[in-house]
Order: sequence, then C-alpha cells, then structure tokens
Amino acid sequence: MPKLRFRISISLDGYVAGPNQSLEEPLGVGGERLHEWAISLAAWRAAHGMEGGEENASTQVMAESLVNIGATIMGRNMFGGHPGPWSSSAPWTGWWGENPPFHHPVFVLTHYAREPLVMKGGTTFTFVTDGIESALKQARRAAGSKDVALAGGAQVAREYLRAGHVDEMLLSQVPILLGAGERLFDNVGTDLHGLELVRTLAAPGVTHLAFARKSDA
Amino acid sequence: MPKLRFRISISLDGYVAGPNQSLEEPLGVGGERLHEWAISLAAWRAAHGMEGGEENASTQVMAESLVNIGATIMGRNMFGGHPGPWSSSAPWTGWWGENPPFHHPVFVLTHYAREPLVMKGGTTFTFVTDGIESALKQARRAAGSKDVALAGGAQVAREYLRAGHVDEMLLSQVPILLGAGERLFDNVGTDLHGLELVRTLAAPGVTHLAFARKSDA
Repeated sequence: MPKLRFRISISLDGYVAGPNQSLEEPLGVGGERLHEWAISLAAWRAAHGMEGGEENASTQVMAESLVNIGATIMGRNMFGGHPGPWSSSAPWTGWWGENPPFHHPVFVLTHYAREPLVMKGGTTFTFVTDGIESALKQARRAAGSKDVALAGGAQVAREYLRAGHVDEMLLSQVPILLGAGERLFDNVGTDLHGLELVRTLAAPGVTHLAFARKSDA
Repeated sequence: MPKLRFRISISLDGYVAGPNQSLEEPLGVGGERLHEWAISLAAWRAAHGMEGGEENASTQVMAESLVNIGATIMGRNMFGGHPGPWSSSAPWTGWWGENPPFHHPVFVLTHYAREPLVMKGGTTFTFVTDGIESALKQARRAAGSKDVALAGGAQVAREYLRAGHVDEMLLSQVPILLGAGERLFDNVGTDLHGLELVRTLAAPGVTHLAFARKSDA
C-alpha cells in the first residue's frame, strides 16, 4: 500500500521553526539555519530551478525523499498567505511562483474553502476544509500507486503522527539550538505508533534519522 | 588543558528524564528507557559490578567516555536523598552502594553544607555549596592532568552549558518519545559556545552525537 512519508529538518532542541514566524520570516528567527544543508545541495537547487550546489552524503537522502511521490499534503501556514479567509482581490498562490516544485496534486488543509488552483508544471493546489482524514483520502486517491508526502508544517505533522498515519519519517537533525519556536513533538505523546529508527546517516551539517514501521523495514 | 566532558542520554523529543521524578523513580516515568542501550553493554555492567551484557558499536563510545576521567561533578538530585538539609540521623550516601563506580573524587552541588564522604574504592563525595565555578575549580584541581566528567542532571548541565564551560558533549540520542519530563536544552538559549558536531555514530537503540570545540576537533 502506498505510504504517507514525512521529512522535516529539526534542531538539536527539537524545533522545526524559530520563534516569531511571520509572512516576512515564515521559518521564524533563525529557522532558515535548519535548511542550509538542503539548500546547498545541487539536487535541491535543481528542483527549485537554481544552478550550482554540491553533492555529499545528503544528496541520496534528498533524492530518495523526492522519488515516487504522487501527491503532497501541507498545512495552511506552509502554503502561506494571510490568516483567515482567502482574499479574492489578491489571491495568494503559494510561496513558489507560477511553477511550484511539486509537479503533482497538493492538498492544503485550511478552515476556509477555496476553488482549486491550477499552476504550471503539473502542480494543483486543492483546499481541504474537512480535516486530515479527508485530505489523506484525497491525496492517496490522487497519488494512485505512488506515495503521499506530508510536507508540514509542524502542526499538521503532529496531527498525522498522533493519528498513527505516518508510515515513514525522516528527521534531518541539524546540530544547532534555536532556543524557541515551534517544536515538532509537543503534545504528540509517547507513542510513535510503530515507527522505529531504521537508519542513521551522517552528512555535512546534518544527521538523518530514518524511521519506518518495523514490519516494513 | 584538561577538559570538562559531558555525556547524557536524551530522547527524540529532548528529554533527559521522564515526568514525575521521585526517590522511587529518580529518572521519572519512562526515563529508564533512555539507558537501556547502556545497561545492555558488558562494559557498563562490569563497571557496575554486574556480569553479562553485550558488545556492539556503543562499547567503544562508553569506554571512551569513562577513560581519563579524574573527577566528576554532579547535581544534588543525581546524588539523591530527600530534598532540603541533609539528615544526620540516616545520612544518604548516594544511589551506588558502599563502593560507587566512580573511583575518583566526586563533587556534589548542593545548597546544604555537609562533611566529605569517603567511600570504598577511591570514591569521595565532596559537597560544594558555593556554585558551579567553585565546583569546577575544585574538580579540576582534584583531576590533575585528567579530565572532569559532568555527570548531570539536566539542571546542572544547563548551568555549565550556559556558562560555556563544557568542552565536549556526547548526546546519546534514543529514538523514543517521553512526552514530558525534564528537557536538556530548556532555557539554554541558542549558543553552543563553540561546540560543534564532530562525529555521529549509529548503534543498536541509540545514535551518538559527539560535540567538541572546533579548535580541538
């Protein structure tokens, strides 16, 4: 059965975003430091239409996290735009420009209904107002035989973790302290719902911890 | 110059002890799960007068953490005993029996003065009431050319981390959630005071992350 896969960068003190997140600083103060290891990769830069970058032990991890994904689920904060109902005069279309790097259906969890948004390059944004189970169902249907990526942010990830829906989790742990912000595991409890550490990979500026269900490992 | 070295087991969600620590459950609810990887090692069991155990990738890490230590610093909670002034009628002598596994001078940070305690096997407990700088100074003097181990708990470790005194930090990260308890990095801020990740080692049930000062690496 296709899997729900979740990858996120996390600080040594457990934060996936710094404090004081805003439209100007969506990752919070210091939050961009969590992603330096990824942004330095040629593979990441190519996927985002940028040149240059390097190859290192993270290249394979990044490549694996992008392969065989047929749909993506994300929270409203990750999609962006002002909180509250969607503006019809200046509609927000995401952070990623007219050709987002997904190239498949993306399901955005939100409290406010909105017509689907068809972007260039195969990315569509569908706005889901009836909860995580509905979003997962729609994403699985859209992904067909491929997997579904859970893109975040932390709040949505926590909901799927608590519900036991995450089949694979890749924590890219960055050896820094953010001191404050949004913690991934706040109020998740003590239950990893069968997820176990199956692989550890050290790379420049990051340690990747791969979790999977024991039966799948 | 001899170093201040700190090793601790930490959960995926950043806890070094579970909730509701007590004299009966000093590691808090679930806290003992943080130490299963260590207790299973033949090296650990031998150091604590126990037989059996296994050898795996953690064996070398444990051996390195025990070698060349001339003195240990710990907090009052780690030493144990009822909070408040020391009882003179039934004096607490630590968790470790009459022959503790240190075999060198141990400095216990406490608010209550007490005469030094001489145990079997070369372990002495000296009670320090005038703060972390004094304890470090006394421990360094006692250790001579050897290093000083910072044994914990979390509160004392945080104080030394914040003061920038820790020269080496080994986080033994256990892939479990404790959900609540005592976090190592609460209120430590964003400054690792020059400590950088220098080595990552995957072992059964634990990932060891070794930090050192860049100049020493």
